[in-house]
Amino acid sequence: MSGNVTQVRFAKPAPGLPTAETWAFSHDPLPEPQEGEVSIRLHYLSIDPAMKGWITNKRSYIESVPPGEVMRGFGVGEVIASRTDYFKVGDFCTGFTGIQTHATLNGRTLRKVDPQLAPLSRYMGGLGMTGFTGYFGLLDIGKPQAGETVVVSSAAGAVGHVVCQIARLKGCRVVGIAGGPDKCAYLREELELDAVIDYRAGSLGEALSEAAPDGIDVYFDGVGGETLDAVLARINRHARIVLCGAVSQYGQLENMVGPGNYMQLIAQSGLMQGFTMRDYLKQMPAAFVELLAWEKQGKLKFREHIIEGIEQFPQAVDMLYRGENHGKLMLKLV
Amino acid sequence: MSGNVTQVRFAKPAPGLPTAETWAFSHDPLPEPQEGEVSIRLHYLSIDPAMKGWITNKRSYIESVPPGEVMRGFGVGEVIASRTDYFKVGDFCTGFTGIQTHATLNGRTLRKVDPQLAPLSRYMGGLGMTGFTGYFGLLDIGKPQAGETVVVSSAAGAVGHVVCQIARLKGCRVVGIAGGPDKCAYLREELELDAVIDYRAGSLGEALSEAAPDGIDVYFDGVGGETLDAVLARINRHARIVLCGAVSQYGQLENMVGPGNYMQLIAQSGLMQGFTMRDYLKQMPAAFVELLAWEKQGKLKFREHIIEGIEQFPQAVDMLYRGENHGKLMLKLV
Repeated sequence: MSGNVTQVRFAKPAPGLPTAETWAFSHDPLPEPQEGEVSIRLHYLSIDPAMKGWITNKRSYIESVPPGEVMRGFGVGEVIASRTDYFKVGDFCTGFTGIQTHATLNGRTLRKVDPQLAPLSRYMGGLGMTGFTGYFGLLDIGKPQAGETVVVSSAAGAVGHVVCQIARLKGCRVVGIAGGPDKCAYLREELELDAVIDYRAGSLGEALSEAAPDGIDVYFDGVGGETLDAVLARINRHARIVLCGAVSQYGQLENMVGPGNYMQLIAQSGLMQGFTMRDYLKQMPAAFVELLAWEKQGKLKFREHIIEGIEQFPQAVDMLYRGENHGKLMLKLV
Repeated sequence: MSGNVTQVRFAKPAPGLPTAETWAFSHDPLPEPQEGEVSIRLHYLSIDPAMKGWITNKRSYIESVPPGEVMRGFGVGEVIASRTDYFKVGDFCTGFTGIQTHATLNGRTLRKVDPQLAPLSRYMGGLGMTGFTGYFGLLDIGKPQAGETVVVSSAAGAVGHVVCQIARLKGCRVVGIAGGPDKCAYLREELELDAVIDYRAGSLGEALSEAAPDGIDVYFDGVGGETLDAVLARINRHARIVLCGAVSQYGQLENMVGPGNYMQLIAQSGLMQGFTMRDYLKQMPAAFVELLAWEKQGKLKFREHIIEGIEQFPQAVDMLYRGENHGKLMLKLV
């Protein structure tokens, strides 16, 4: 095995959202695997809102990517060479592979996946970290009860559309917030949510009051900012706010605006809780099985937004932060 | 029984903190109790940070006091007339009595107290709502474990000094934040905290990094604002932030500043949770017994700041919001 790898590197920091100059492409020979390593050819790469955080030099759950290094990212691919007992050539696996066409990595950082259970793209989306994020955030922190009102922001996004559907499965009234008529039509017609709010179309507060006349019990927050404040003003007693992201604030990550209405958490005995996937490593296989079963039973429909070619990475990131993706955004390389 | 009652009424709303014009004194005959009612002569009245919230027309856990009405407040007093089977003349009781020298109230809104178990003032302080607030907030939400670092703001205040001592009892490293050398000396010498920070004396962030070198596991927040942000920047994984108040913000309750560092709750899988006493009504007797036992065993020392005379109410409120009280602030009427 030998060949070249095309890599996207983090070129240099920018104060706001990433631009074309944030990235640099490089072409290098793929290193041969050493003892304990495997080489993989990547089929799909995940485009994630967390990427801005990964290239920002601010205290977080994970170290930031040093300028010059290959950009961090999840990928799924096929083993093309192995010096481990566990992985054989032809196996498929996923993990933090970096944004590149091929990777040589320590086998222990990768997890085997089965392309016969689900298409490979699914492991980047609804049956991978993205789906698990929605699953654990909603069920373990949000704890939705039948009859409660669940509000989901970025509802047509990668995590949001999974959260909406699980909340429906649990018998909740589900209110989805998204930007623009296409996404709202998808939420209304395909996911059949109880209410849909286009945040670009008028007063979010009034729309929320109308869509959640009995108040809000659970809020799954991917956007922060004004949306979080508008929800806080309408929470019910013992409400749970699941903090998943704050994409409205990622252009000013160094100087974020906090939720001015957070004192409603006192008035309503509410909680606001964050999480990352490392809280749930042991429960992931069970989540995978349940999500897969729901999909096979037709109870969950995953939406994937697939763009072809690693050279599209900068444009894909732009698209993500402009909210132009429909469902889980990923790059297809093979 | 007949006589006059002196009352403090909420005269008119003000945008910031209460001023002398916020209050009006009135003198009226005390109504005779009707069936189910008792008349009480008040001995102590509690001065609480929540008072600003009670006179602000903003959604909260309780309705705001209408202008012209007797100001809301906790009191403890002696029954001087009763038309209930439960209360007899000479009994002592506590509840939302209003800021007045006497009150005629529905007996069901009052709770009997025993002046032989503890001095009456204690039922306004460490063995009343104030003590329970510290007890339940710290133990039920903060869940401090031995060896963890607990940071307490307003540490020399009514709730804070109770929280500090319970955290010590649980084997935690306790860091108290207070304003000025007197309060800090009290925390250092009388409560023997592990570290004490005078927030007026320099950079709070640097002082916190020094006082909590292993990071912060539990934060009991009575102040909000910059202190909350400085703590968020230093929380450990699975940290718990107990929201009890935001006294730094009460001058601008209509336009509060939220914690810009709240995304650390995601990075560290932390939670921020509010509460009010109605979450714990059933557990109050057990809390009373435990707090009383700790006091009798010398493990808890309650500090009370007592001012004589109902005419001192406006000054006492000013004192509270200027942070000039040492321990639980109350008015003594008898």
